[in-house]
Amino acid sequence: MKLRPAQILVLGFATVILVGTVLLSLPVASRNGETVGFLNALFTATSAVCVTGLVVVDTYTQYSLFGQIVIMLLIQIGGLGFMTMTTLIFLILGKRITLRERLVMQEALNQLTLAGVVKLTRYIIFTTLIFEAVGALLLSLRFSRIYGVPRGIYYGIFHGVSAFNNAGFDLIGDFKSLTPFVEDPLVNIVIMALIIFGGLGFSVIYDVFTTRNIYKLSLHSKVVLTMTGLLLVVGFLVIYALEHTNPKTLGSLSPAGKILAAAFQSVTPRTAGFNTISLSDMSLAAKYFTIFLMFIGASPGSTGGGVKTSTFALVLMMIYSVITSKENVEIYKRRIPMDNLFKAVVIMLIALLLVLTVSFLLTITERADFMSILFETVSAFGTVGLTLGITPHLSDAGKVLIILTMFSGRVGPLTIALALASKKKTAIMKYPEERILVG
Amino acid sequence: MKLRPAQILVLGFATVILVGTVLLSLPVASRNGETVGFLNALFTATSAVCVTGLVVVDTYTQYSLFGQIVIMLLIQIGGLGFMTMTTLIFLILGKRITLRERLVMQEALNQLTLAGVVKLTRYIIFTTLIFEAVGALLLSLRFSRIYGVPRGIYYGIFHGVSAFNNAGFDLIGDFKSLTPFVEDPLVNIVIMALIIFGGLGFSVIYDVFTTRNIYKLSLHSKVVLTMTGLLLVVGFLVIYALEHTNPKTLGSLSPAGKILAAAFQSVTPRTAGFNTISLSDMSLAAKYFTIFLMFIGASPGSTGGGVKTSTFALVLMMIYSVITSKENVEIYKRRIPMDNLFKAVVIMLIALLLVLTVSFLLTITERADFMSILFETVSAFGTVGLTLGITPHLSDAGKVLIILTMFSGRVGPLTIALALASKKKTAIMKYPEERILVG
Ligand SMILES: [K+]
Ligand SMILES: [K+]
Repeated sequence: MKLRPAQILVLGFATVILVGTVLLSLPVASRNGETVGFLNALFTATSAVCVTGLVVVDTYTQYSLFGQIVIMLLIQIGGLGFMTMTTLIFLILGKRITLRERLVMQEALNQLTLAGVVKLTRYIIFTTLIFEAVGALLLSLRFSRIYGVPRGIYYGIFHGVSAFNNAGFDLIGDFKSLTPFVEDPLVNIVIMALIIFGGLGFSVIYDVFTTRNIYKLSLHSKVVLTMTGLLLVVGFLVIYALEHTNPKTLGSLSPAGKILAAAFQSVTPRTAGFNTISLSDMSLAAKYFTIFLMFIGASPGSTGGGVKTSTFALVLMMIYSVITSKENVEIYKRRIPMDNLFKAVVIMLIALLLVLTVSFLLTITERADFMSILFETVSAFGTVGLTLGITPHLSDAGKVLIILTMFSGRVGPLTIALALASKKKTAIMKYPEERILVG
Repeated sequence: MKLRPAQILVLGFATVILVGTVLLSLPVASRNGETVGFLNALFTATSAVCVTGLVVVDTYTQYSLFGQIVIMLLIQIGGLGFMTMTTLIFLILGKRITLRERLVMQEALNQLTLAGVVKLTRYIIFTTLIFEAVGALLLSLRFSRIYGVPRGIYYGIFHGVSAFNNAGFDLIGDFKSLTPFVEDPLVNIVIMALIIFGGLGFSVIYDVFTTRNIYKLSLHSKVVLTMTGLLLVVGFLVIYALEHTNPKTLGSLSPAGKILAAAFQSVTPRTAGFNTISLSDMSLAAKYFTIFLMFIGASPGSTGGGVKTSTFALVLMMIYSVITSKENVEIYKRRIPMDNLFKAVVIMLIALLLVLTVSFLLTITERADFMSILFETVSAFGTVGLTLGITPHLSDAGKVLIILTMFSGRVGPLTIALALASKKKTAIMKYPEERILVG
């Protein structure tokens, strides 16, 4: 009974995925009236519920309107369910325990009563719908001009939901993602904004909207905002530097288009999965850099995946402290507790172990170059959805591996966090200590 | 003055490398009487002193007898110097602090007096020379039959020194390493034995030779021996499974040759750098697996590199403890202290950061496939010396990057260990604690 919240989470996600699989494998879910097959339906449902966006079949070409709406609902349930549950679980398990943080959440939470939980969930759903509605409205303006009003509105809603939930599913067709809109400021800016807000996490959004003074934000919010900002700026500069002369990616665009496309490609690994340039045409260095960004991912309690910006920040600060012989890890004049660092490190190491194991297995099951395999694995683990093009060509074993990786990438880190949180101080017999030489 | 031992180590190594560079860039060091050039000499000297074995020019074809002997001496100084200094430093800084460990080392150390240090150093040199002499003798028997007696003895000594110091330099010519001896039991078994003993670390060898009862070995020795054994067995099985049908590697060998070659390729990433099969002809999976083995590397206080078997063992056990909700990390009925785990994790993370950064930079500077670049980087970091063939074709920037990586890989982890060891508990003003959400 120790892992109850984790078990609920895993079982809940698995159930939604199974229901989605059944619905998507119905002939009526396919445009051509023939079932897409169990494994492809399972892949699509997992990708949607885990808001990943990797697709073995093109969403627009393969699925009927019914199928597409199932996918949109799975994305909404997956994204919202995860954001709500992580926020609740972090609160209920007392992971946010400083006075400042309690104050921030107090209004929403009311001492963890059922009413409080309902109220918090309402807040999260309300926030999500507001963002999605504004995004959908703005996107509809553009899409209506291209696809006509009814389909334009539908496209606005679908892509608004997909972007805020960091899902990366699109209806453009032929695995094109958003490449036809590479120089379109409206589509780019709206999608980027939705991705970024969706990836910040509810507690940060709440903190920012309720705190007038930036200095009074919680340490968590400060770290998440700093790290997100840094990653966006560095990501933009690196992608621009590496790709602005590549005629197959940024090179052929207008000066403004280059900037827009580089910005978009620095936002999307956090962990949206849309792309506006051909990723497989990027340089090796840019692909590798995108892997870093995807691995780091979004922020805790958000719709995004990855090891999380805050985890990465703690690990970086820990390394910095060791190299500079500092005794404590200090960020913004606050000391980070040891168990907090420990947790960050464990999450990072387990993520690495998972990515390395899966990519190793894929080098056995797939016939593809190493970069494409590593890219695909990290994309699945981080629930990103970017690909160098091998997803539709995966072997059945490869599809199963990627399905498991998307699922682990989604529920895994939280389950680990829960396992760490529920560890009780038991007074059992202890073995004597002994040290081992390392390094 | 805080980092004095680390500074001595870094400056000492740098000085030996510079002297080696000057000697190797002399025209007389080259077979053709023309200087090999400063950068190539620096690369060779760094590779020799750091006992790596990556070569931009073929040792036999390029260097004269004088040059080859300089390389052998650099290997001996680098290997012996590092093993002595790490053992001394671990002892002097009290990193081996349990009663059992003190007892093991007492005889050699005599309460850290100068006489004790001299005695310990003598022990280490004596042990090294014994192993090298026995290895050289056995190898000479085989080499004398091929190259005649004088050259056979010289080859026996050179390869005995190179193997025990985990250096991986050879005199076979044409970058062939030991591939002509792929099915030769004597050469294979002697070289493997030297690599394994050289990679265990002096304290483990001393512990094993002075402790009659295997249960009474120090925890460190038990962990190192278990992990080394595990890696060798798993390495053998995986390489055999992946390559036994590959006609370009194991496939064309006799049944006994297959076993010998798979065994050799599982030993050499710990971190010797010889090879008896063509590594670039291995499957993608086998190359990737070899990268794992190289990254882990040898054991602390040995001639080998990598993050070390014990570091990897602690990280694995830590992850296992977290996943199974164990409160403590326990190995062989001993509890591992928190700071010991912390150090293992920091070494692992810094190593990863270094490898990722260098390989990223190489994707910018080099025109090579991603696997070859990652393989080369980990090989340089782990001072392994295996290559998929890109070393001789590196750009100047690439050479400089690999030189820096070899040097960091050799002195880095120890310097970090020293930095961690010399941290004093200072009673300065402390900031209040605050927690950050991760995962
Ligand atoms: K995604
Ligand atoms: K080596």
